[in-house]
Amino acid sequence: MTTLDDARRLDTADPLAGFRERFALPDSVIYLDGNSLGALPKATSGRVEAVVQSEWGEDLIRAWNTRDWISAPKRLGDKIARLIGAAPGEVIAGESTSVNIFKALCACLQLTPERSVILSETGNFPTDAYMMEGLAALSGGRIRQVLVERDAIDAALTDDVAALLLTHTHYKSGQLHDMKAVTARAQALGIPVIWDLSHSAGAMPVALNDCEADFAVGCGYKYLNGGPGAPAFLFVAKRHQDRVFPVLSGWLGHARPFDFDDRYEPAAGIDRFQCGTPAILGMAALECGVDILLDADMQEIRIKSQALGDLFIEQVEDRLDGFELRSPRAAGERGSQVSFAHEHGYAIMQALIERGVIGDFRAPDILRFGFTPLYAGYADVWTAVDILADVMQSGVWQDARFNIRSAVT
Amino acid sequence: MTTLDDARRLDTADPLAGFRERFALPDSVIYLDGNSLGALPKATSGRVEAVVQSEWGEDLIRAWNTRDWISAPKRLGDKIARLIGAAPGEVIAGESTSVNIFKALCACLQLTPERSVILSETGNFPTDAYMMEGLAALSGGRIRQVLVERDAIDAALTDDVAALLLTHTHYKSGQLHDMKAVTARAQALGIPVIWDLSHSAGAMPVALNDCEADFAVGCGYKYLNGGPGAPAFLFVAKRHQDRVFPVLSGWLGHARPFDFDDRYEPAAGIDRFQCGTPAILGMAALECGVDILLDADMQEIRIKSQALGDLFIEQVEDRLDGFELRSPRAAGERGSQVSFAHEHGYAIMQALIERGVIGDFRAPDILRFGFTPLYAGYADVWTAVDILADVMQSGVWQDARFNIRSAVT
Repeated sequence: MTTLDDARRLDTADPLAGFRERFALPDSVIYLDGNSLGALPKATSGRVEAVVQSEWGEDLIRAWNTRDWISAPKRLGDKIARLIGAAPGEVIAGESTSVNIFKALCACLQLTPERSVILSETGNFPTDAYMMEGLAALSGGRIRQVLVERDAIDAALTDDVAALLLTHTHYKSGQLHDMKAVTARAQALGIPVIWDLSHSAGAMPVALNDCEADFAVGCGYKYLNGGPGAPAFLFVAKRHQDRVFPVLSGWLGHARPFDFDDRYEPAAGIDRFQCGTPAILGMAALECGVDILLDADMQEIRIKSQALGDLFIEQVEDRLDGFELRSPRAAGERGSQVSFAHEHGYAIMQALIERGVIGDFRAPDILRFGFTPLYAGYADVWTAVDILADVMQSGVWQDARFNIRSAVT
Repeated sequence: MTTLDDARRLDTADPLAGFRERFALPDSVIYLDGNSLGALPKATSGRVEAVVQSEWGEDLIRAWNTRDWISAPKRLGDKIARLIGAAPGEVIAGESTSVNIFKALCACLQLTPERSVILSETGNFPTDAYMMEGLAALSGGRIRQVLVERDAIDAALTDDVAALLLTHTHYKSGQLHDMKAVTARAQALGIPVIWDLSHSAGAMPVALNDCEADFAVGCGYKYLNGGPGAPAFLFVAKRHQDRVFPVLSGWLGHARPFDFDDRYEPAAGIDRFQCGTPAILGMAALECGVDILLDADMQEIRIKSQALGDLFIEQVEDRLDGFELRSPRAAGERGSQVSFAHEHGYAIMQALIERGVIGDFRAPDILRFGFTPLYAGYADVWTAVDILADVMQSGVWQDARFNIRSAVT
């Protein structure tokens, strides 16, 4: 059994401890939901203000050149590439994860034009499945979406599969796919794979090119700390880029957008996967989050993330009854989060949030806790479980107010 | 011939003069490019800072409920609806104009499932044409994009046309389409029309429902003053909303997104046209811009916009040679901008910008000037032409530095 003093000693020895100072977290909060919305970097407010007041306000339209707004999607893409094992020119920042999934699916269909199945797993993050469903609907029957249980994926890999879309770290359980092995098995059958890195990028080392990955997408507002609704990103392996005609062929993906030609001519390389005008305020905030991660050692992040998760599991299981672990017990098999099921999960989470310990609830019964090594420490984890124990012992979670459902859970 | 004193008298009598104070324009600039990137409202910086520091920084993930981030796309959509003659629940803010065009095109294909042609005009803003091209490519030949000259549009309206996509105010010439007449002619043949309002919304009265419009899209960063890469908007007439399965069927368009179901069930009404997580910083900035417009009288905006354009044309034609008007001379036939062609247009515009008069250049030879009645006045227009006259007389525009092309023109 670990004590609070033990946890504090681990914090003192933590090589990442200095990063906590770069985030503006309220003192009253233990934030274990950075896997849903990352915390605010202290640098962000000033940077966004400079973009608004000085760049937009003073340079106005000229800022596309003078402040190089026009390069933001690619500059930021190159920075994100370093976090996920990709090369410069393979990642573009912009739009939402959902829209980027659509782009990647359309690209796969072009690489495998004779095939008709787009495959994913049941229980994947919904937007992944939904975007597939929309594409299938548009195809008028030519493309069919198939969802299978995780242990049936291998059997479903056939020569009719045009794309396999999987989330690397499961949003609910945190369970990891073996990216290298799955990619290799799919590719052996000519199936390109799209990895959704929303719960992986910034949380652990990701080695896209080492896995010979085809496509990947990911979220800017979770572990990248880019702010609410931050731009997402899209990775397209160099070898595929010039073989694909972007279906979302907006003007900024054109080879010469300011020629204003009637006909679309895709830009060379990753630029063709740009679509509309980039969201500059969101890009500025995202860059502040990404810049912090670039200063950190991703191996150290992973080591601490696993230790925090292990400590959390140990403490919950030692001190509490009625909570059933729904994440892999082995740290190497899970991402940077731990989920427990409890039949009163919703109310317990609301009571916990009221006490300042912020995790989230995922239907039907999951309490989900994310561990962000740059700003969460061992004493935070210990104290969070201590407060959870108090919430359970006091029975306060049974108060009716904790069963009022919010719009966002 | 108008004098500077005449222009100043017009400014004094201008009922919109008070709005100038609500924008943070540099003193050294006469800004005639609000049709490309609108100016910064003074309220925006503080509002964005509050969203960053207080909402994101302190409320963290809770802000989706406590600050009602989740309603931003619809709340903002309802506000924009009031500017374009739409009803509450018919407009959703989010994503880019390009992505919203794709959504609208896909919707049209569902309303006209037997048809195969998507029609627009040559010389339309490129992203409109390019998004059509991408959709046609995805269809593998089932859908065909056709572009015709403006005067051939009527003849091209046949019972094989699935969608007509037109920009209400032409981005280059400012020429207006007659929205009501074109919509009626197309609909008589069963053709739904998509109006791109990028250069109309916030610049003049738009009466979508009075025209019985089907779909519209528009830009947040031009006359709506939402900032660089601001969220765009999509209008879908009430009568069509529940007949369409959104192809970009992201999780926030689901009837119950937080149930995390495997199967997509579209939300009722305009909500189903949401896709990914909304860009909250961009939404906050856009709302500041839209709120100013909601305080103004759109008829007064239109009257002043026409007068500013008339004054500009009069002054250029009285004082300068070699500039050929490329916008309709009749104010009622053009939007809030005036374009002149000049064989040395690029260099002249760069020289003009260096002197603080900011318009823009559109290839191959167009100098484009936008008139934004909320923050541009008659004396600004008079002085802009005076400076242009000086640039031409001095020959300064012939300096080599004005022929160095920028990334964005």
